[in-house]
Amino acid sequence: MTTAPPASVLRGVVPPVCTPLTPDLEIDVPSLKRLVDRLVDAGVDGLFVLGSTSEVAFLPDGHRRTVLETVAGHVGGRVPVLAGAIDMTTLRVIGHARAAADAGCDGIVATAPFYTRTHPAEIEAHFRQVAAAVPLPVYAYDLPVSVHSKLDAAMLLRLASEGVLAGVKDSSGDEGGMRHLMLALRDAAVPGFSVLTGSELTVDAAFAMGAHGVVPGLGNVDPAGYVRLYGHCRAGRWDEARAEQERLLRLFDIVNSGAADRMGRGSSALGSFKAALHLLGVIDCPVTAPPQIQLDAGETERVRRILAEAGLL
Amino acid sequence: MTTAPPASVLRGVVPPVCTPLTPDLEIDVPSLKRLVDRLVDAGVDGLFVLGSTSEVAFLPDGHRRTVLETVAGHVGGRVPVLAGAIDMTTLRVIGHARAAADAGCDGIVATAPFYTRTHPAEIEAHFRQVAAAVPLPVYAYDLPVSVHSKLDAAMLLRLASEGVLAGVKDSSGDEGGMRHLMLALRDAAVPGFSVLTGSELTVDAAFAMGAHGVVPGLGNVDPAGYVRLYGHCRAGRWDEARAEQERLLRLFDIVNSGAADRMGRGSSALGSFKAALHLLGVIDCPVTAPPQIQLDAGETERVRRILAEAGLL
Amino acid sequence: MTTAPPASVLRGVVPPVCTPLTPDLEIDVPSLKRLVDRLVDAGVDGLFVLGSTSEVAFLPDGHRRTVLETVAGHVGGRVPVLAGAIDMTTLRVIGHARAAADAGCDGIVATAPFYTRTHPAEIEAHFRQVAAAVPLPVYAYDLPVSVHSKLDAAMLLRLASEGVLAGVKDSSGDEGGMRHLMLALRDAAVPGFSVLTGSELTVDAAFAMGAHGVVPGLGNVDPAGYVRLYGHCRAGRWDEARAEQERLLRLFDIVNSGAADRMGRGSSALGSFKAALHLLGVIDCPVTAPPQIQLDAGETERVRRILAEAGLL
Amino acid sequence: MTTAPPASVLRGVVPPVCTPLTPDLEIDVPSLKRLVDRLVDAGVDGLFVLGSTSEVAFLPDGHRRTVLETVAGHVGGRVPVLAGAIDMTTLRVIGHARAAADAGCDGIVATAPFYTRTHPAEIEAHFRQVAAAVPLPVYAYDLPVSVHSKLDAAMLLRLASEGVLAGVKDSSGDEGGMRHLMLALRDAAVPGFSVLTGSELTVDAAFAMGAHGVVPGLGNVDPAGYVRLYGHCRAGRWDEARAEQERLLRLFDIVNSGAADRMGRGSSALGSFKAALHLLGVIDCPVTAPPQIQLDAGETERVRRILAEAGLL
Repeated sequence: MTTAPPASVLRGVVPPVCTPLTPDLEIDVPSLKRLVDRLVDAGVDGLFVLGSTSEVAFLPDGHRRTVLETVAGHVGGRVPVLAGAIDMTTLRVIGHARAAADAGCDGIVATAPFYTRTHPAEIEAHFRQVAAAVPLPVYAYDLPVSVHSKLDAAMLLRLASEGVLAGVKDSSGDEGGMRHLMLALRDAAVPGFSVLTGSELTVDAAFAMGAHGVVPGLGNVDPAGYVRLYGHCRAGRWDEARAEQERLLRLFDIVNSGAADRMGRGSSALGSFKAALHLLGVIDCPVTAPPQIQLDAGETERVRRILAEAGLL
Repeated sequence: MTTAPPASVLRGVVPPVCTPLTPDLEIDVPSLKRLVDRLVDAGVDGLFVLGSTSEVAFLPDGHRRTVLETVAGHVGGRVPVLAGAIDMTTLRVIGHARAAADAGCDGIVATAPFYTRTHPAEIEAHFRQVAAAVPLPVYAYDLPVSVHSKLDAAMLLRLASEGVLAGVKDSSGDEGGMRHLMLALRDAAVPGFSVLTGSELTVDAAFAMGAHGVVPGLGNVDPAGYVRLYGHCRAGRWDEARAEQERLLRLFDIVNSGAADRMGRGSSALGSFKAALHLLGVIDCPVTAPPQIQLDAGETERVRRILAEAGLL
Repeated sequence: MTTAPPASVLRGVVPPVCTPLTPDLEIDVPSLKRLVDRLVDAGVDGLFVLGSTSEVAFLPDGHRRTVLETVAGHVGGRVPVLAGAIDMTTLRVIGHARAAADAGCDGIVATAPFYTRTHPAEIEAHFRQVAAAVPLPVYAYDLPVSVHSKLDAAMLLRLASEGVLAGVKDSSGDEGGMRHLMLALRDAAVPGFSVLTGSELTVDAAFAMGAHGVVPGLGNVDPAGYVRLYGHCRAGRWDEARAEQERLLRLFDIVNSGAADRMGRGSSALGSFKAALHLLGVIDCPVTAPPQIQLDAGETERVRRILAEAGLL
Repeated sequence: MTTAPPASVLRGVVPPVCTPLTPDLEIDVPSLKRLVDRLVDAGVDGLFVLGSTSEVAFLPDGHRRTVLETVAGHVGGRVPVLAGAIDMTTLRVIGHARAAADAGCDGIVATAPFYTRTHPAEIEAHFRQVAAAVPLPVYAYDLPVSVHSKLDAAMLLRLASEGVLAGVKDSSGDEGGMRHLMLALRDAAVPGFSVLTGSELTVDAAFAMGAHGVVPGLGNVDPAGYVRLYGHCRAGRWDEARAEQERLLRLFDIVNSGAADRMGRGSSALGSFKAALHLLGVIDCPVTAPPQIQLDAGETERVRRILAEAGLL
């Protein structure tokens, strides 16, 4: 079935929710609920579970189901919950998407196929087939760093116009391309399509250009900061927005806490987010899933120092 | 548990087995059994299920289990069966590997992590953790075109020497690097480690350099050809080997049957292999899994013509 | 010699000047002078000759010298003239840089080495040696699409602080990274370093974040538009800036005039800029240098239509 | 003018000649002559000057001219001399090619355009225009690691059949693709086209597949080894060829002498070749051109040890 896009466009701050784990690598359900409450209480406009920041690539299907059921159940409709259906190709993505629908989520986020080498026509077929198979709005996730292809703007415009897609989460870093798409959507008067930026360091600029929302990984650590930033942007207080964004940009330096000569940049960023949440008392254990390398004591101390400088501790 | 490598090194022709599907995209079990019998009867030395040529990236877990159980059961020990445990990261790979062990397979093939950006130390940790978690020999799958990183030769030598890995399937296309590894293994007198090339167009060269085996996708279509080629190489009949390899190289042109302006190169190659198996009467239906584009009638006719020129029809 | 950075930071609109050619591929000096006058008369703040938009990669050294002497001489100090010293490695770049100094240019723009595979330490040595060899301010040109490496932010900050570099032209498309650099420069109170964005579709955003200038290829076609845009930004008229930028974004669609199935995206963009300048009566001949494919009549008509819609014809 | 390909196909060992420099970075002409004599005396079949191993990317045009005139003059027809005309695009390449012709060289080696983003049609136009502009045979240089595109096999076959190109130097590492091309040339009975491999670690395999020659960087250090290897291959002594190739493969380890954490792999390889030539008494000074990092004493000692183990000292 092709689903009608949501009546109202998704807007605002939609953090990708970190996935707390226990020391033996199970989902830490109480910590996850605390994190969700902290985000909702801070005033975020939605939640995105099972995204890259959620370590979705590291979680077995059983873990994923626990996350979906925990968050959808615990949120209880306070804000919409989008769920990543992240897998290599169509049938596998549809399986995850149906699990998210069954758990009560409100929308699906899916990337282009990866691992395989895919033609643009196959990427378009992929989104059409996923959208037809699940009774939820589908958001395209543009993430070339992971899937090694960039979503074509003409395809997005086409799928938006036909109501196949409800939005895009643009983490491509191509702000000019995103603006081109937004302008084309406006010129074509396409209703109900949400453009969410994943570029968490240029949020004020994205809102100024017409973006509807932001999906900031750093929003796990400082959701109130992103809520304030969005508020400033909505009200046209661009100087205040810029100051808030610059404060968050300095805080973002926590992602560089892990030494580059012994771990990947992903391990450093996700490990730092979790270390911060642990230092803030939100989650019980900062462990990330294998094969990621863990932050050591000195690296964690660096996270603490930056949090303190930002006034968060 | 770290497993001892197999008593005898895996050698010879180990085709990656295509996965026949029904028109409604279920596993076509009778066709799969016929294909397996055809390969084993042709004299292959092992089978590799759930590899890239098997469309593993397109198959949901239920389909994967059916393949594992069907092939392991049907082969019944006639030749060893390796199983791809292809997924993004460690815990997910371990899940697939355990399913393969439960189904009675004889070895596991795993790539470096993908979708995530991974440090070499994390790639090494990944292989160590996978090997420790399953009671089967583990073969590393070097496939930069899919996972966007190349396995480090020093790491492979280390994991071979420690008995963590039982072999490598090298589909990187870096023949100089593969030869360097083989020479280093010999110089270090590492026993029981199998180097299998995925470069199906330079098999005579690989065997001349000291490779133990080959994993040829085209072996689905002409297993007897690869068995003859391996026999020539083993016996030092290099002129005959070259002639056989050149015949197979001409046959390999079937992979270009799908038009490049409307489908990916993977769709063309996998679609052509399946079209050939269908034309040869081995499988009932040539369909490939979504979102792959299907060969049309003219493209299928091109496959038929090349098969006929090769004397296979 | 290491040169002191310029007393005043370079700011504003600095178009990369197209290089008009005659039908027999010589520099069309009268057309080049007309183009320069048009840009200066429109109020631009500087000129950048021999950049990518100038087809520098296509021009022999003799052509380059003619451009340098023509533009430096004809401008006569009305605005500063930066010159690209674009070549593979240090000694070759220094040769071009000295030619620019001899011709009377005011600054040098140089990329990281290319064709070779270069270590970050070698990239830094490169900029230090170039800066030491020429008596002009040196601007780093961050252009991963051409040189296949991204300039490291910490290196830029270091070279800025030491006065080795006078600025950066950031065409990497990484707006978050550019903002991080600008914030670090401000936090470190580094004086006299100019950050120029090459992202010509998000200029209002770049100025809002603190960029000093913009180097817009499209500025060849509509310099007055970019001058207005900069004026709005400087005055804090963000709504007017956004409207002007969106108008330019629509005009930018001319770069897609060349058919993607018969020419590269560079040929299409540079060919369209030159077709527009020809249609506007600024240059005598729209030819681009070999091996670029030329726009055909229908493609040129598309450029004309977009110019007309933009009110430029 | 389109030039007829050479009457006889270029065959055998054609080393890319290192370019000795003086401490103040001028061409060291006496050392260059000694190196040339050593190579010719060892029995090589041709010389390739101004290739990647010659540091062509680092040499200003004046240096290049000195190399061309020195080598062409000093060789005096004893073996053919090919010259790299390595630059970004067509007109610049033609300039270098004409300089090589003027100096008396026997053939030109040119890559696809780089720095620019080029369509396949533009790459083909590039080779056609270069070949038409110079009165020498032109060899295509397939070097994706430097130019970031791979030469299309169908294009090479077309340009070979039409006599536009006299050969290809394949440094792409794609041995299957090279074999496919060689088979297609044979099937089409294209005369006078030379396939030279740059894969210096799989030379026996390349000759077994039908390659005409090899361009080994390591041939600077051990030309006699490559001459013996070629002799074995020509005579069908494949076991002896394999042993010689494996000896050279171990010697090739010198390229890893420079520490990876402080220099690029190119600096390490070129620095090691020059360090070896210096230790062997062939050249006076091992310096490489900026911005390459130089080997230190310990790294040079490693080169000496490997040379000694190989019996070359």
